[in-house]
Amino acid sequence: MPLVFSHDTLAQRVLFGAGLAGTHLRDEISRLGARRVMLVCTAGQAERSGAALHGLDIALRWEDAPQHVPVERAEAARAAAAANDIDLIVAVGGGSTIGMAKAVALTTGLPIVAVPTTFAGSEATPVWGLTEHSRKQTGVDARVLPVSVIYDAALAEGLSRELAVASGLNGIAHCIDSLWAPRADPINATLAAEGITALARGLRLIGGSATRPEPDGGGDGDPDDRTALAGREAAQYGAYLSAVAFASAGSGLHHKICHVLGGTYGLPHAATHAIVLPYVTAFNVPAAPEAGRRIARAFGSDDALAGLNRLRADLDAPRALADLGFEESQIEEAATIILPAVPESNPRPVGLTDLVTLLRAARAGTPPENVRWENVA
Amino acid sequence: MPLVFSHDTLAQRVLFGAGLAGTHLRDEISRLGARRVMLVCTAGQAERSGAALHGLDIALRWEDAPQHVPVERAEAARAAAAANDIDLIVAVGGGSTIGMAKAVALTTGLPIVAVPTTFAGSEATPVWGLTEHSRKQTGVDARVLPVSVIYDAALAEGLSRELAVASGLNGIAHCIDSLWAPRADPINATLAAEGITALARGLRLIGGSATRPEPDGGGDGDPDDRTALAGREAAQYGAYLSAVAFASAGSGLHHKICHVLGGTYGLPHAATHAIVLPYVTAFNVPAAPEAGRRIARAFGSDDALAGLNRLRADLDAPRALADLGFEESQIEEAATIILPAVPESNPRPVGLTDLVTLLRAARAGTPPENVRWENVA
Repeated sequence: MPLVFSHDTLAQRVLFGAGLAGTHLRDEISRLGARRVMLVCTAGQAERSGAALHGLDIALRWEDAPQHVPVERAEAARAAAAANDIDLIVAVGGGSTIGMAKAVALTTGLPIVAVPTTFAGSEATPVWGLTEHSRKQTGVDARVLPVSVIYDAALAEGLSRELAVASGLNGIAHCIDSLWAPRADPINATLAAEGITALARGLRLIGGSATRPEPDGGGDGDPDDRTALAGREAAQYGAYLSAVAFASAGSGLHHKICHVLGGTYGLPHAATHAIVLPYVTAFNVPAAPEAGRRIARAFGSDDALAGLNRLRADLDAPRALADLGFEESQIEEAATIILPAVPESNPRPVGLTDLVTLLRAARAGTPPENVRWENVA
Repeated sequence: MPLVFSHDTLAQRVLFGAGLAGTHLRDEISRLGARRVMLVCTAGQAERSGAALHGLDIALRWEDAPQHVPVERAEAARAAAAANDIDLIVAVGGGSTIGMAKAVALTTGLPIVAVPTTFAGSEATPVWGLTEHSRKQTGVDARVLPVSVIYDAALAEGLSRELAVASGLNGIAHCIDSLWAPRADPINATLAAEGITALARGLRLIGGSATRPEPDGGGDGDPDDRTALAGREAAQYGAYLSAVAFASAGSGLHHKICHVLGGTYGLPHAATHAIVLPYVTAFNVPAAPEAGRRIARAFGSDDALAGLNRLRADLDAPRALADLGFEESQIEEAATIILPAVPESNPRPVGLTDLVTLLRAARAGTPPENVRWENVA
């Protein structure tokens, strides 16, 4: 098949190291020549990140980081940045914290150093979001992409095991969907495959340690703690790659389906992704053999769907949209809303019947390999 | 093993498509808002690239692109760019042509759009080189990294099959060496592994068609031509990734050895790389199991060295430094010069005896799997 694509690689420095966030932060502040740092960080996260933030010269501490970034709260942060003569934003936290930093960068052009404490991935994308009159507006702007990202697995310990697993499966969904998204290309696919491998390994270490009995001891030397830390580290690395690949490739069929299930029916984000993903994989892979091979290899399996299913079983991932409150009566309507959003790039043509079949199976939790699709891939 | 690294991703747009260089060039010139384009391109290459360059509005055509970029020739090009009010450099050609464009960008800050016609990889690096009084000076400057790179396999047809294979094996050396180079990290390793896979596939298609009898027909519809074009396409893609990984990771043991063999003893670049690579692989892999697994998987083999050896056999690659004129009497001296340059990052400690053993084996063409190393990995 001829190789025709256009790929934009975005400039970013990434620093990895458990327990090294403080050192790396100081290095980056010095390298960027910043003198007036604005720290965006919730009070709870600031406490958990005490060691990393200790001794940093902070000109302005901003502890307001609400979900979906309401525009008036962003305005307040921007005004504070201007009034304090800020020359660098350091954001320590999850998607909301980094989102607030991006909102400030969007209008001020201030550089961001991001220290993510979840696997949300916002730190690796030039995508911003703001909410005005309960409507969320999103956009892409090179100025909001953090110049540096500092990963420290020790800072991700505030994330519960359950949330870590859900968020990590969401990262795997980014990876898999980027293989057939509108701007899919082999570079994105390469990074996505590495992301799958790292996330699968990390989630098994995190999820696995959740199922083992609590050990007697505790502290740094605890093997379970060390396993969980290694798991968070691998998951952070995988989540980073998933965000890079997804930001470059765009939303594929999977994300279009989940967007409607979340937006229109209020289903919870991460669990919805975890349930829908194997059905999209089962539907698309027969028509996308190269993507299927990449996914399979990334899972260390002979088969893409089998590899994904094994991980989901190991993690005891949610299996049925019915358990999230999705109703039989909503299937047809949901399929009708999804259909016009299906990307032209999808490797297999998607009809209304296919979406109904997919949603019905995902609602019931039918084993994805047993679903009978109307048209032949 | 803990994940500790720092990785700088450089911004670049890459456009791929056989037969699309003209369209992509026009798109990029327009996107960048350029009005006064300087074309750097040898006369021969300009002729071969006629279709791609047809109808472009060229303010200045610069056909001087000597090897190693003598500084006075660079000065002449810079003066011409200034006199002609140039706002974009388009470089169509191999390493020397792109090197000349970089020399102009280095002092003027002019952006470069590169259209590579070989697998040299200079287009993906911020490395420049200039020669003054027969001394080559090199450096790294963000300004010389082309903003866009346009790959068109049809333009790589000027490269002979022999040169394509040699240059491609050099690309594989970049990939493998980047796995244990000073700034090796998993992101570089991921790109390098994909580069190995693409180069191996591309070189088999190019090299394979060289060994088949010439067909009766000719022209575009010729299956051999199409195979060779697909091979050049895959090799271009692999060479691009090899350059990205190598530029980020730096020179490892392999490049330090080849640098001395080329610089001090005048051995030819590509053939030297092709011969030395399996010995460095045989020496290092036992001490770098993860790198070994990545290389093996990338070759579609169970074993790194076996995968590399099979490719070399398929391509009938050169096997002995003796055939290139390297003398038994030069081994000790060469080893002594190489030793202080060995990177600390090398996964296996390197002693003088190891280098002597390696060079002796590479000189004789001893099967690399049969070499007995003094110390145990």
